[in-house]
Formats: sequence, structure tokens, C-alpha cells
Amino acid sequence: MYLEKIDSPADVKKLTVDEMTALAEEMRKALLFRLSKHGGHFGPNFGMVEATIAMHYVFESPKDKIVFDVSHQSYPHKMLTGRKESYLDADKFDDISGYTNPEESEHDFFTVGHTSTSVSLASGLAKARDLKGEEGNVIAVIGDGSLSGGEALEGIDFAGEMDTNFIIVVNDNDMSIAENHGGMYRNLKLLRDTEGKAECNLFKAMGLDYVFVKDGNDIPSLIKAFEGVKDSKKPVVVHIVTQKGKGYAPAEKDKETWHWHMPFDPETGKSLYDAEGEDYGTVTCNYLLEKMQADKSVCAITSATPTVFGFTPDVRKKAGKQFMDVGIAEEHAMALASGIAKNGGKPFYGVYSSFLQRTYDQLSQDVCINKSPVTIAVFAASVYGMSDVTHLGIYDIPMISNIPELVYLAPVTKEEYLAMLDWSLEQNEHPVAIRVPASLVSDGKPFTKDLSKLNKYEMTQKGSQVAVIALGSFYGLGVEAAKLIEEKTGVKATVINPYYITGIDKEMLESLKADHKTIITLEDGVLEGGFGEKIARFYGDSDVKTLCFGLEKKFYDRYDPAEVLKENHLTPEQIAEDVIKTL
Amino acid sequence: MYLEKIDSPADVKKLTVDEMTALAEEMRKALLFRLSKHGGHFGPNFGMVEATIAMHYVFESPKDKIVFDVSHQSYPHKMLTGRKESYLDADKFDDISGYTNPEESEHDFFTVGHTSTSVSLASGLAKARDLKGEEGNVIAVIGDGSLSGGEALEGIDFAGEMDTNFIIVVNDNDMSIAENHGGMYRNLKLLRDTEGKAECNLFKAMGLDYVFVKDGNDIPSLIKAFEGVKDSKKPVVVHIVTQKGKGYAPAEKDKETWHWHMPFDPETGKSLYDAEGEDYGTVTCNYLLEKMQADKSVCAITSATPTVFGFTPDVRKKAGKQFMDVGIAEEHAMALASGIAKNGGKPFYGVYSSFLQRTYDQLSQDVCINKSPVTIAVFAASVYGMSDVTHLGIYDIPMISNIPELVYLAPVTKEEYLAMLDWSLEQNEHPVAIRVPASLVSDGKPFTKDLSKLNKYEMTQKGSQVAVIALGSFYGLGVEAAKLIEEKTGVKATVINPYYITGIDKEMLESLKADHKTIITLEDGVLEGGFGEKIARFYGDSDVKTLCFGLEKKFYDRYDPAEVLKENHLTPEQIAEDVIKTL
Repeated sequence: MYLEKIDSPADVKKLTVDEMTALAEEMRKALLFRLSKHGGHFGPNFGMVEATIAMHYVFESPKDKIVFDVSHQSYPHKMLTGRKESYLDADKFDDISGYTNPEESEHDFFTVGHTSTSVSLASGLAKARDLKGEEGNVIAVIGDGSLSGGEALEGIDFAGEMDTNFIIVVNDNDMSIAENHGGMYRNLKLLRDTEGKAECNLFKAMGLDYVFVKDGNDIPSLIKAFEGVKDSKKPVVVHIVTQKGKGYAPAEKDKETWHWHMPFDPETGKSLYDAEGEDYGTVTCNYLLEKMQADKSVCAITSATPTVFGFTPDVRKKAGKQFMDVGIAEEHAMALASGIAKNGGKPFYGVYSSFLQRTYDQLSQDVCINKSPVTIAVFAASVYGMSDVTHLGIYDIPMISNIPELVYLAPVTKEEYLAMLDWSLEQNEHPVAIRVPASLVSDGKPFTKDLSKLNKYEMTQKGSQVAVIALGSFYGLGVEAAKLIEEKTGVKATVINPYYITGIDKEMLESLKADHKTIITLEDGVLEGGFGEKIARFYGDSDVKTLCFGLEKKFYDRYDPAEVLKENHLTPEQIAEDVIKTL
Repeated sequence: MYLEKIDSPADVKKLTVDEMTALAEEMRKALLFRLSKHGGHFGPNFGMVEATIAMHYVFESPKDKIVFDVSHQSYPHKMLTGRKESYLDADKFDDISGYTNPEESEHDFFTVGHTSTSVSLASGLAKARDLKGEEGNVIAVIGDGSLSGGEALEGIDFAGEMDTNFIIVVNDNDMSIAENHGGMYRNLKLLRDTEGKAECNLFKAMGLDYVFVKDGNDIPSLIKAFEGVKDSKKPVVVHIVTQKGKGYAPAEKDKETWHWHMPFDPETGKSLYDAEGEDYGTVTCNYLLEKMQADKSVCAITSATPTVFGFTPDVRKKAGKQFMDVGIAEEHAMALASGIAKNGGKPFYGVYSSFLQRTYDQLSQDVCINKSPVTIAVFAASVYGMSDVTHLGIYDIPMISNIPELVYLAPVTKEEYLAMLDWSLEQNEHPVAIRVPASLVSDGKPFTKDLSKLNKYEMTQKGSQVAVIALGSFYGLGVEAAKLIEEKTGVKATVINPYYITGIDKEMLESLKADHKTIITLEDGVLEGGFGEKIARFYGDSDVKTLCFGLEKKFYDRYDPAEVLKENHLTPEQIAEDVIKTL
């Protein structure tokens, strides 16, 4: 056993090539052990084992600084930099995050979870090194899938003008999360096919030197290549061809399914948990497929995460040219949608809340200023969404709901969601975003509201003294709190489903003044800049009291939702208690 | 005279090459007439006269759709599409905007003012055309400077996979706003030097066909090239080499100064207005130069707009490697700054409020999650900033102040601004943004506040009943309103300079409850999601009344600030009146 003896990269340097090859096998076993029990990014890590060993053999981390793009492929690096126990001992799984993390190790330089950032971040490390007159190599490791992101391309262009040591390792496994999309991938194929010899070379065209490694899972080739560029005084790309999922047959075969995987039986590759029937992915997918058949101008856009709205490979095939995966390129996705809408198409763009952040300017400029009737479905926008600090879905309300012209809707039930989708695709006046609820609730009620009359809330229970305005995923919480208040005080609260995040129903809010003393708001996201504060401002000069419930503005990481809710006074009991104090 | 007879592109098609050449001269005269009196984008338009004539000669606008990137170069297009009077008749100057605008003409498809969007927007037009089974060419026109923006590169990569008609005209004048930066520009030079014959070709590497036009100011060459690609069924780049500022000697000579120009004497090229001494550009520049000399780890970053913080060519030379222009690449600029800060450098990034929008995700992920101590100076963040709808500086407070970990500061005076800059560059705890005030006020008072004690406001006048919390550029307005209130009612208001946009001073706000009935907030930006609403929420459950003053969330376009302020109840008289009603 070699892995057990590796406490730092210094221990890697002591090994022979044969020993490193044996180490690679041990590392794959450790990866399989952890991932089959814990879940996580699978394919990218299995492909990068040898390259990571070779980098730590050749370079002197942490003096030489390796920055992993999106850090989906950083597990082998963690194993070799003092964190192997979290891959060998199930009790220590949770000692580490799924991403690079400077709090874990001096060998990690950034907390990274969004793609396409490594080149820019690493170029900054190199620049500071040069300003301070220091030495050492700076290495950015980026996958082919991440290359299509604008930030990566901006960074590579900048790197092409750097007159100093800067190494970009392009880990080319010919896959993004799903298959790659974009013209540049034909160039990568040309480079693979010609063993790097083709004259037309994207990286050279961006001003960089270039080295090709045919077998990026072969340790001697990798060592030779890295030694060749070590201490180089010019920016250089080392293009290594690796196999995603290498060493685990199911992952080699079905690369998309095994990009990230939940816990599974390592013998068979079967998931330990069944998907639990209907969710908003399948609901969206079924709706869109039907709609697309009836109307050829309807189309669906993804930026490399098609399955978030249920578009698995077979569905993508069915949708044909009415489906577009633009690759990791959220900015382009949003502007593309605007162009389609402006020429009479009906674009749907499904995106995670966290990745919507990458396209703020396009939403504002390309879409909203132009009043393009695009439909954006915002997924995992909830405290119940992803809980890694880099993937939180609790900031989108302040981010986008303050952009003029946008209509941001918060459905509560499946029926409301589908009605909103359909209204949005058929109307021609407004850019519309829909905040997909955290979990699927279906009440079977037909939704007949005329959504084109903007900012009209719905009073679902008429009471007095207290009004509960509960948005989207937190509507159910509002209903529960209202019940508790009635149980405890006899006061029957008014309950309101506002639907519209982007505007207030002045008429209804005005009418509440007559017989309400306290208005509370609930929203599934940070309070700062959000929905509740708009209500608080509305009532600011009146005698009505307001209490806003939501999350405190901060970065949460790997949390238990129940605990975070409690911390933020978001249990029905806490809400009721706070309200009762004002009565 | 030909121009006077051109009412639409159909009239261009009737002309001979000689007549078109004469038309080009007339168009330059008309441009000079308008721009010398009215100001506007100069160099880009002078360079694009012939190409615009040739496009309208060859293509059938509006069935064929031309999308101009950033639309700095769209004036010749406006002249040929029914809007010539606004270049010939001074009374009609204001009938048109400085950007493409669908409300002006069916030949304009988008309101565009940010760079790097044309390819993505136009690809959407092409996609909708294909979904609907329609015909026609779609043409994106993009300058070499705009190519470095991530959205453009994402769009070009996507275009490389389109299996349909799509034409990208790359207008290469070898300049951005200032000189170009990035490795790709060596490839453009190689292509110019080899007349497009070099094998290594950025556009081919992105999967596109490619045509080169050596003299992009020669009408016959352009017509030939456009006819060659018209109705093409494959995506293709037409790379035309033009001369920025062509036909006006001062603009040919000093391309940076003449990218955009205020009114001038056409005989001499001299500006009609003198720069009025000290402004925040020169103040920032002087501070940074001195700081850079004392500390080699200090560096300044711009994304293609160096003069916003006073970095004219001579200053850039002085700063040497401590200055970086990354080209139009805001995402990269922000991530680069984070990398520099994380490795012990002291990065300053100066950016317009409107363009800061392009880097929301990098600010959140690359900077704030990593707590990188970068310093961002946000310019033109005010109702008094730029007034074109695409360049407004009134949305940055809701956009960035709700991102965790960021400290967003609002200085009132030059002294406060410089102290904040210095504190920020020297501290190592927080990402800091500074909202540069609209106009320079200097009170000579040394600023001694300890800014590391976050969210501590300053009470500048102690009064009672009313408290005025007036942020940054609107502090003076708050003082004036307080005076008026005192004059009219005898009530001496408390006046507070909050400094911190990103947090509230709970202790001070709490203390105000004792002897204040009404708290008002003032901010120079939209109210929704902004500063005042946080105060309104704080007081929501108390007896204190709050009134928030700021701008209504909407898109304003080419406005008179005084009118917009009045519309939004933002004169001292209106504020006083509103406050007095609550007493």
C-alpha cells in the first residue's frame, strides 16, 4: 500500500514510476470506496488520477500553485495533499468538501465550484508572484468542457499576452457534463487526431505555446511533459487526453450518468436510491415535449445541464433542433434566448439559480432592456437546493428581481407552475422567470388566474389583525404559521400567495391597513434586497407593523436545512411566537 | 448629393460604385457635422462607412438582419435606413439615440450598448428563422476590440456549430477603446500580415468558415466578399480590415482620444469644452501612482476603459507592469484581481457601474466566497452618470450590496474617498467596493474613522423627531432637505452619513427610536433591493415611520437628471414636504 504512506506531495516524489502506477490503482479504489457510499463527482476524478500524481511528482506544491477549474477533478489532489483519510475512512468523509478549499489545506488556493474560473484566478496568482519578485510555477488545470465558458476564454486570451511562467493543463476527456457543444470542440478533435500537430490550433491562435500529451493517463508521458514546461518563462498549454471515468467500466461506458453520481453499489453500478417518481424535472420535460410537438417555434435551451429539466439523452433526441445545449456558456444562452424571442420564437431556458448568476448582464441588457419575451425556469432556488457554498440557490431574488421589466414568478404548486410556463411561452410582452419550487406539491386545482395583470396577489384566507404573505416554496410554511397563530391566540390570519416577486399589489396591501396590525412576509432566500423588504418599505409610513422572515445574508456551507431554518427563525413555531409578540 | 436621396437601403442599391464612393464622402461630412456639434462615437463610425454601404447594397435589410455589436459603429447604418436627417439637420439630432434602437427603425433589432453581444443575439435571430422555416441572411457585425469579451467568444463557439446561414463580419481596426490586449490580437495581426492565409486562425479553430478582406474601406472588395457569403448555408466570418477614424486626420492619428468625442471645432479638432480641473479620475490616478511607487505590490486593472480612473497613455507607461488593461473582459478582470489579492498583491479594479454588471458571478464566487481583499472603484454610479438606457449607473446597489462578505462603501467627499481607497488597499479581510461620488466635493477635513469596524454610521448633526440617513452622492441632498425642514417647522433633524451600503448600524438605529418619529433614507439609485429598504425592514416592527427616497425601478433613457429627480420626489422641497406630512 502506497497511498497510506502519502502525507504530502513530498512522499509522491519518492516513488518510482511503477510505484506511482500502483498508487494510481489504490487511489481509484479509494475513490470508489468514498463515492459509492457518499456520492460525488465521479468521472472527472477517475480520469485525472495519473495527471495529478505526475503534477505532484514534478512540481513543488504549494510553492508551485495548482488551481483546479470547478474542482470536480480535485479529489486525487486532496488524497495526495494530506487528506487521504477522507477517502479511506468512512468516518472522515465529511472532514472535506467536494471542492478545493483553502481552509482544508495550504495546497488549495481558492474555494471553487463554478466552472471556467481557473485560468483567470491562477493568472492573478502569477501576477502577484511577479509583482513581488518571487519564483515558482503557477498551473491552471481546466477541463475541455469548461473551456467554452466566457470567463475561461477571456482568461486564456489574457494568458496569451503574459510574458512569464504560466502553465495551463487542458484535461481533454471529450466530454462536458453531457457531450460538448461548440465549434472549438472540432478543433480539439483535430488536435487529438493529429497528435497536436495541426497548424490550426485554438491555443496557439490565442497566443500560447502548446504541448500535446497523447495518453493523459500514462504517468511517464505526463512527467515528461510537465518537466518540459516546468519553470518555462512563457505561457504554455499542456493538452492532455484523458479518459473520463477511467478504471470503472460503468463510468467509462456512460460518461454523462457518471459525471456526478449518488451512492451506488460498486459491484453493479446501480444507485442505492431510486429516483422518487415525479419531480419538476420530469414535469417540465413532459410539458415541453408536448408543447414542442404542437408548436415548432418552441425551443429549450440548456447551458450544459440538460437533465435539470429532464432532458436526458433520449428526450434530447426527440426534441431534435428544438433543443439546444450551448455548452457551459450561460451568457450566450441568455442572449441567444433573447434573439430567438425577438424573431418570433418561444425560447425556454432552464438553469440552476446559482449559475444564473453568470448571466446578470445579459438578462438586464440583452433581455430586459429589449423586453424580449423569454421564459427562464430557475431551478434549485431554495434553502433546500444544493448546500455547497459555491452552489447556493438563495441569492437569486435580490439578484434578478430588482432588474426592471422582468416578471419573476413564484409558483407554489405544480398546477401553478405549469400554468405560468404556458402563459409565459404564449405571451409577447415580458421577460419572465419562474422560480421552480423546492419540492413538488400538487393540489389538482386548475389555475385560472390571468397572469398578464401583473402584480395581483391572491388572498387565500381572509382573516384580520395578522396577514401572512408567503412566497413560493415558503407558502406552506406561511399556512402552518397562520394555523399556529390561530391555535394559540384565536386570531385568524389573512393568508396571501403573492405569485409575483417583482412587484407589489398596492391595492391589496392598502386594503389590509383597515383591519390588520401586523403583516409578515416569508421568502425562501436571503432577506437583504429581497421580497419582504419591498413590503416593509410600502408600510414604512403607516401604522402597520411588518416582520420579514427569510435568511440572513451570508455564505452558508454544507448545512443542514433544518438547522439553518431554525437559526433564521423560520420554523412555524418561531414565526408564530415572533408574530404574537407584536399583537 | 446622394445622401439626401437615400430613404432606405433600396436607394443604395440603385447606385454605381463611383456613386457609392461619393456617398461615403457625404456620409463622413454628415458624421463630422453631427459629431462636432453633438459629440458621440467617432472613430468606429468613420471606419465603417464603406462596409455599411456595401452591406446595404448586397443584403436585403430588414429581411436580412444586421446586428451591430455595442452599436458604436451604427451611425452610417442609421443614415442609410431612413434616419439621415438626424445627421444633416441640427434640429433633429435628438430624434435618434447613439445606439441601435428598434423603436426608431425596422432595420434595428435590439437596443444595444454593451459590447460583445452581437453574435449571440444574432444567432438567436437565425435560430428562430430556422425554427419557423423562414429565409434570409443574419449578419452580426463585431469589432476586434469586442472579440475579447466572454459573451462574444461563447457566441462564436456556438456559431461554429450552427449548420445554417450565419455571417459574422469582424471589423478589425486594430483598436479597442484604447489599444487591444490579449493573445488573440497577435493572431489577428498574423491574419492581416498574411492576408488571411495563415493556417493558424482563431475563427477556423472555433469551427467557422473564413473570408479575408484586405481593404475594408474599399467598396468593390467589400461587395465582392459579401456577395460571396450571401445565402451561404454555413456559418462564416468575413474579416475586414478597416481604418478607425478614416477620413478625419486627427482621428486617424489619435485613435484612443477619438473613439468617443465631445463637441469640437471640426477645423482644428479641439474640444469646445475644457476639462474642468480635478475630478475623480485624476484624483484616483494621482493617488494610485504615488501608492504604486511606494509599494510594488499595488496594481491597477482596467477592462478597456483606463481613462475612467485617469490612466491616460502617459500614466499607463509610468505605471508599467503595475497597470493591466485586460481588454473588454470584465469577468477576467474580477477573477484576476481575486488571484492577485490571494497571493499577496494589492489589486485595484476601476470599472463603470454599468459594466460591473458583467461580472456579478465573479464578484460573488471568485472574490466574495474567497474573501479576497480586492478594491473595486465603481464609477458613474449615479443618476448623474451616463443617461443612455444601456449605460445607467443606478442598479449597482441592489445588484452587489446583497452579496455576502462584500463591503460596499459610499464616500461623500474626496477626503473620504481617498481614505477608503487607502484603507481598502491596506486591509486583508474584506472584498471592498467604493461607490465613487457623482461629483467631486472636498471639505478638507481629515478622515480618521476606523473603517475596519464595519457598519458604523456617523451622526453629523444631532437633532430629534426626524432623522435623515443620506448615502454618498445624496448626502448633500439630505443636508439640504434637513435645512428646509428646520426652516419650515423648527424641527432640527438628525443627519447621518452611513458610509456603509452593505450593512446597518443597529446600535445607532436602535438609539434613534427614543426621540425620533420619522427616519428617512436617501440613495442615488433604484429603491428596490437597495439601501433604504434595509432600514425600512429594521424599523418594520417599531413605531418609527420610515420613508425611502430614491429612484423607481425602471429603465430610464436619455433623460434630464433634474426631471427624473423631480418625478421621483427627490428635490429638497419635495422631500421636506413628504417628511412634514408625517410629523
